[in-house]
Amino acid sequence: MADVYSFGSGKADGNAGMRDILGGKGADLAEMTNLGIPVPPGFTISARLCIAYVEQGELPASLRGEVAEAMARLESATGRRFGGGEKPLLVSVRSGAKISMPGMMDTILNLGLNDRTVRSLAAESQNPRFAYDSYRRFLQMYGNVVYGIKGLDDTGDPFEHALDQLKREREVERDIDLSASDLQSLAETFQGIVEQKTHHPFPEDPWDQLRDAIEAVFKSWNSRRAVDYRSVHRIPHDLGTAVNVMAMVFGNLGEDSGSGVAFTRDPSTGHARLYGEFLTNAQGEDVVAGIRDPEPISQMSTWMPGVHREFEGYCQTLERHYKDMQDVEFTIERGKLYMLQTRRGKRTALAAVRMAVDMVEEGLIDQRTALARVEPAQLDQLLHPTVDPAAELRVLTTGLPASPGAAVGKAVFDANRAAELATDGEAVILVRRETSPDDFHGMVAAQGILTSRGGMTSHAAVVARGMGKCCVAGARELEVDEASRQLQVNGTAVNEGDWLTLDGSTGRVILGKTKLVEPKPGGDFVKLMTWADEHRRLRVRTNADTPADAARAREFGAEGIGLCRTEHMFFEGDRIRSMREMILSETSDERRRALRTLLPMQRSDFVGIFRAMDGYPVTIRLLDPPLHEFLPREEDELRELAEAMNVPLDQLRRTVNALAESNPMLGHRGCRLGIAYPEITEMQARAIFEAACEASAGGAEVHVEVMVPLVAHVEELRQQAAIIRETADLVSAAREQPVDYLVGTMIEVPRACVTAEQIAEVAEFFSFGTNDLTQTTFGISRDDAGRFLPLYAESGVLPDDPFQTLDEDGVGALVEMAVSGGRKANPKLKIGICGEHGGDPRSVVFCHRAGLNYVSCSPFRVPIARLAAAQAALADA
Amino acid sequence: MADVYSFGSGKADGNAGMRDILGGKGADLAEMTNLGIPVPPGFTISARLCIAYVEQGELPASLRGEVAEAMARLESATGRRFGGGEKPLLVSVRSGAKISMPGMMDTILNLGLNDRTVRSLAAESQNPRFAYDSYRRFLQMYGNVVYGIKGLDDTGDPFEHALDQLKREREVERDIDLSASDLQSLAETFQGIVEQKTHHPFPEDPWDQLRDAIEAVFKSWNSRRAVDYRSVHRIPHDLGTAVNVMAMVFGNLGEDSGSGVAFTRDPSTGHARLYGEFLTNAQGEDVVAGIRDPEPISQMSTWMPGVHREFEGYCQTLERHYKDMQDVEFTIERGKLYMLQTRRGKRTALAAVRMAVDMVEEGLIDQRTALARVEPAQLDQLLHPTVDPAAELRVLTTGLPASPGAAVGKAVFDANRAAELATDGEAVILVRRETSPDDFHGMVAAQGILTSRGGMTSHAAVVARGMGKCCVAGARELEVDEASRQLQVNGTAVNEGDWLTLDGSTGRVILGKTKLVEPKPGGDFVKLMTWADEHRRLRVRTNADTPADAARAREFGAEGIGLCRTEHMFFEGDRIRSMREMILSETSDERRRALRTLLPMQRSDFVGIFRAMDGYPVTIRLLDPPLHEFLPREEDELRELAEAMNVPLDQLRRTVNALAESNPMLGHRGCRLGIAYPEITEMQARAIFEAACEASAGGAEVHVEVMVPLVAHVEELRQQAAIIRETADLVSAAREQPVDYLVGTMIEVPRACVTAEQIAEVAEFFSFGTNDLTQTTFGISRDDAGRFLPLYAESGVLPDDPFQTLDEDGVGALVEMAVSGGRKANPKLKIGICGEHGGDPRSVVFCHRAGLNYVSCSPFRVPIARLAAAQAALADA
Repeated sequence: MADVYSFGSGKADGNAGMRDILGGKGADLAEMTNLGIPVPPGFTISARLCIAYVEQGELPASLRGEVAEAMARLESATGRRFGGGEKPLLVSVRSGAKISMPGMMDTILNLGLNDRTVRSLAAESQNPRFAYDSYRRFLQMYGNVVYGIKGLDDTGDPFEHALDQLKREREVERDIDLSASDLQSLAETFQGIVEQKTHHPFPEDPWDQLRDAIEAVFKSWNSRRAVDYRSVHRIPHDLGTAVNVMAMVFGNLGEDSGSGVAFTRDPSTGHARLYGEFLTNAQGEDVVAGIRDPEPISQMSTWMPGVHREFEGYCQTLERHYKDMQDVEFTIERGKLYMLQTRRGKRTALAAVRMAVDMVEEGLIDQRTALARVEPAQLDQLLHPTVDPAAELRVLTTGLPASPGAAVGKAVFDANRAAELATDGEAVILVRRETSPDDFHGMVAAQGILTSRGGMTSHAAVVARGMGKCCVAGARELEVDEASRQLQVNGTAVNEGDWLTLDGSTGRVILGKTKLVEPKPGGDFVKLMTWADEHRRLRVRTNADTPADAARAREFGAEGIGLCRTEHMFFEGDRIRSMREMILSETSDERRRALRTLLPMQRSDFVGIFRAMDGYPVTIRLLDPPLHEFLPREEDELRELAEAMNVPLDQLRRTVNALAESNPMLGHRGCRLGIAYPEITEMQARAIFEAACEASAGGAEVHVEVMVPLVAHVEELRQQAAIIRETADLVSAAREQPVDYLVGTMIEVPRACVTAEQIAEVAEFFSFGTNDLTQTTFGISRDDAGRFLPLYAESGVLPDDPFQTLDEDGVGALVEMAVSGGRKANPKLKIGICGEHGGDPRSVVFCHRAGLNYVSCSPFRVPIARLAAAQAALADA
Repeated sequence: MADVYSFGSGKADGNAGMRDILGGKGADLAEMTNLGIPVPPGFTISARLCIAYVEQGELPASLRGEVAEAMARLESATGRRFGGGEKPLLVSVRSGAKISMPGMMDTILNLGLNDRTVRSLAAESQNPRFAYDSYRRFLQMYGNVVYGIKGLDDTGDPFEHALDQLKREREVERDIDLSASDLQSLAETFQGIVEQKTHHPFPEDPWDQLRDAIEAVFKSWNSRRAVDYRSVHRIPHDLGTAVNVMAMVFGNLGEDSGSGVAFTRDPSTGHARLYGEFLTNAQGEDVVAGIRDPEPISQMSTWMPGVHREFEGYCQTLERHYKDMQDVEFTIERGKLYMLQTRRGKRTALAAVRMAVDMVEEGLIDQRTALARVEPAQLDQLLHPTVDPAAELRVLTTGLPASPGAAVGKAVFDANRAAELATDGEAVILVRRETSPDDFHGMVAAQGILTSRGGMTSHAAVVARGMGKCCVAGARELEVDEASRQLQVNGTAVNEGDWLTLDGSTGRVILGKTKLVEPKPGGDFVKLMTWADEHRRLRVRTNADTPADAARAREFGAEGIGLCRTEHMFFEGDRIRSMREMILSETSDERRRALRTLLPMQRSDFVGIFRAMDGYPVTIRLLDPPLHEFLPREEDELRELAEAMNVPLDQLRRTVNALAESNPMLGHRGCRLGIAYPEITEMQARAIFEAACEASAGGAEVHVEVMVPLVAHVEELRQQAAIIRETADLVSAAREQPVDYLVGTMIEVPRACVTAEQIAEVAEFFSFGTNDLTQTTFGISRDDAGRFLPLYAESGVLPDDPFQTLDEDGVGALVEMAVSGGRKANPKLKIGICGEHGGDPRSVVFCHRAGLNYVSCSPFRVPIARLAAAQAALADA
């Protein structure tokens, strides 16, 4: 088994299919060579050798001979000699793993130079400045990456330090103002630095240089950063990296030379035209360094029309060959074009969608491939306004990206003020330590919400996502002083009325009024979504609590509501007072009285939702949160309520305090409320079924699914289901109208998963509430996880945030257990998911594999789920 | 298949083995008859018929004939006629299920009486008063149980009402002062009551009476109370009840008649001697009613020596036959002894142990039977002082029986005062709303602890159980005003210094200084425990945090420590200050400094524990609770700490507030602390291993098991285990002493169970923390469950409190999953349980079946676990 694969002169040992051995870069170089594209000759050392090296700590004896043979081929292909002669052979050495990753040794250019060959190069190029510039660059790169001589602490990179000092001495500002002899003396200084740091002279023998560079690449595979990166991105540790050794070509040999980078299509918009930049008389690194302004690639046709045509041809060949947009690097050495690299080009969501659709229409790829090409999570960019990427930003801090999109407004620190200013037509950002139901009207009024506490499922986050409103939560560096209407962050104060910009997709909190870019999902997007719908098996529903949300979600393609939370309905306007009276009632009679005033409100909400979801199922969850969440906290609210209810203030305060809980997440909530106060369940069921009758009478096709939350034991569901079914019968009889309904439960505590077979004897559907299921499975409160979950990600304890991406080994195993137990008892059981994970692409794939019937997510995530579901189905096939 | 089984004249159709069909009472009557013991003749109607009746709503046609035949046999056996003649046959009708249970129809006596037969009875007995007294009793019982005419609301029982009115008219106080004609007119009044309530005349025909009585018994099987009782006690609903019809005999026919009840051994002490009471000229119900003082059974020998000898013989026969202590009822009618019932006698723990051991020594039973005879939970009575059962009590309220035993002391309302008074030699009861680590010294000083909040795993409860100290927790009716040193309960005020008695086994809070009975587990107890140890497979360890607890637990037979909580060690004396400094440190260095002062304290604690557990394993759990539990709450403590730490008060307050959590149970605790602050783990590991070396050097045999708490993901354990093992190596090398240790984890969140196979690749042992596992599996916070769990028990949602008895379907299924996953990865994995369930007999049986290696419980529950483990092993065999 050979360990070294040569390429050059139109012929390569490898090809694009050999990424395991050659890495991505090496495989594509071989492939380009085989395609007849001019690539500087070179060879790739197998990634297998890297693994052997890592295990044994030394290079195999056989390698030396193989490398020598490959170098000999290189010498004959280039007509140059490595380490000597009039035309010295210089090479670049680069790492290249199967999967591109940072943290490994990057690049050494100009390897092969020493005090002798540099003189030959000067003579050959008739450009001593070029030769010594190349030399000093080589010495610095080599010192950095092979010997690890780098900027440490405040001492800085000693090479840069020496360069700066020389410029000061010569009283020049730019590197290019240094002369050949300046650079020669700099090279000597650099050699001195190496000798001082390593206690050995710089290796003059290019073969030693090459051997050490190869070893350095292999070693870098197990550098701390590389290992961490692989752990986080779930890249196997036994892939290894290949080493690419390639003859140097120079774009800086004069005005007939140059370098550039290009994309075969526009990576921002997806337009099918070459997009890129080049610089004459420059190496590749100069193009990216931004010292001179590069010119657009189209200008090449003016400069060198022949080379431009040739380049266009290669780009077309590559795109046709790879059937995807390519990101290429090239160099022109004295009029001759060399392609140095090709790889799949990164792109924006907009471009990804457009290119996928265009390429199908061009006959380049089929629909399945097009669907696989777009990253579902990217679609978020298309559906929310975003911060203008060109804008200059003053980022104050970064919180959790709790609800995507961007928002601009004046900072306000309480909900009433937010509502007030919004009524006056002002755009506001509501800033709170954390939000509570009391802040609801302020959240509705605000453009975006910013909190300093709470996590991704805090009240602020959940409500904002439901409304499709931008939210940054848990920005812990903020010190929010609600009383003095000010926030402090890292030394900056923001007062009421100051402009803030929030980026809910990244969590950035930005000072000032930043330009936003409005979303415009166009015809390509619609086309791609239609293809996705044709291929997916999973249904996609939405989480929506209002007719407006429901309507919006339908526009995004939702096929029903998977979670309609009824408690949000109680926060609006005067309703909260009736709700509070209900909660604080001492007797069942008083409670019924308060419930009677809530009934018509709930009913009319449901009628609107049923109409908006005409023809689709609507899952309504009965009251879930701990009751104290509805209660007043402020003294004056308490007093007002006491008057309204005609009870002594003290007594009311005691009742309110008695409802406080040590661990509200595990407290008196969910179906435990309905069991303690069956009249609540009865009222809600009545509102649901009366609304269903009303909407049906108005011509809507209504399919109700009544969902009992937080069931741990089948008996809980049995008792609640009995009330619901009795109420359905009563309403149906009274209105002389049949109602199509199911009764089911949210599966959100581990016991429900473990005893799913028992529960499915009563339930007609399951809906996984994976937020709470994750909390209880891990024993982690999401509200409190801010202090240790970030640490868990850093130290590699958890590869993913389990609240973002479903934890397959733990929570997923419980979900699978519940699916199999549930279907065993009831083969017709309908199963869905309504936790946050329903809109996470990887979790959607899991749901597909686990055999769920549908996923449900916030309206803005519906397209993401549709695409992810299609990809999951295609991966199956 | 016959439905009616006769007995009488020394011959019975049934026997004791036919409890399914005849119920307990009927089977034992048949058995006694077959043993030649004089039982009034009668017959039993099969329980199978009850089920048929419940299903079909009517008695089978065939029954009438079978009953008629049985009655005919009865007539011929007694020489009497049912419903007529000079000697009318009267019968009793009683229910009797396989398993004795309240809620069903109890007894109708004297059935067969009507206006005619009562006159015959008067003539025959030459005692009209006796006849009419029997008649009016029959009418009342029949009206009560067949027609459901009972005391309702404030109107009272109309029969009692009429009786009272008659006594007022006659100006007499006692029933026996009413004359025969009074009773005759009362009987007429009673008939009137029945007619008025049922709109039908009272059934004169005894056959109708009999049929309706049989139906009433069958119906009562499905009475609400009976159904609830069965649900709660897990008694199958399809057993049905038998009906026993037996010829009446009368103990109230004169001075040569009488009735009594007796136990074949003393049910309080277990002494092998007849124990009971009798009354001359009385029916059985009079003996229990307490109108006259009955005489001890030994007095029978003076009154009727022959009957006494005969009775003694029967008792001996029954005990030999049943091989267990019997509870018998008898009646002597005109000098002739009849045995009316025999059943297994209820007994105290003391008696149960003594009888079990005695009977083995008498050769009556074998050891296995003896072990099965004692109810493990009862042993609690033997190990703690108890409230004198003879004492008159003023019970103020009842809280949760949080830690068994009884305590008497003066009420005090803060820990300092408790410690102060205790130092002065006063016995005190510490009363708090709830306790915190700050109260620890007060809890140590107090005889018992009383709280108005918190549940069975509240701080007060857990700490008290650990110390074997009586505790009543969550007595919600108490209004504790700590500031004014007073509590209010149901209108009574208790001030500091007032005497209180607590009964931690029942939860009673008693006003005053009540006499306690000290425990005296004697030689019988030790003997029984030795037998238990010979038969059990499960090892029994204890949860102990101090050398004293460890030593006490060894006395009770503990074979190691299954859970040594290290956090309790930080509450003592000055340690809390170092602990607080450690928590509030801003840098890792400051933290290490504070930890260095804690190290020697922890080490010396561990040395003591290792010595006390010489030769046995000791499982030490690393720091577990959320850090804020250690922090000061009171303003002055905060100020003091700020001074000691030399930080501004404001800053300290902010740090303390920042540590507050929404759901501390699911917060930053357990191994999450060790991952955030590895130096804590390192310090604790060092203290453990240094202590192990020190104790070993002193001659003790030390086996350490270091337990990492709250692991949800194997990576958490992997990182913590690495620190522990490194520290062990360091200490071992420095002290030149090998340490025998294991590293394992507490399995207390569902994810750990689901991924046990992964975790067992790192863990050398598992210990189920079933308190937290139950909380997370159900999603129920035990601290907050007080508002709904009691309701769940009442409404039959949960058959048991899952925090008392392990929930096998849910939590148990996860435990089994973890055992099988864990052993798959590591067949030598040691597995135990250290939650509260380790001391609950039913849960111990589950642990045995699940294949655990040991259970661990509080010291006082060790004997209970030993016995339960033996019973589980015997049930297997």
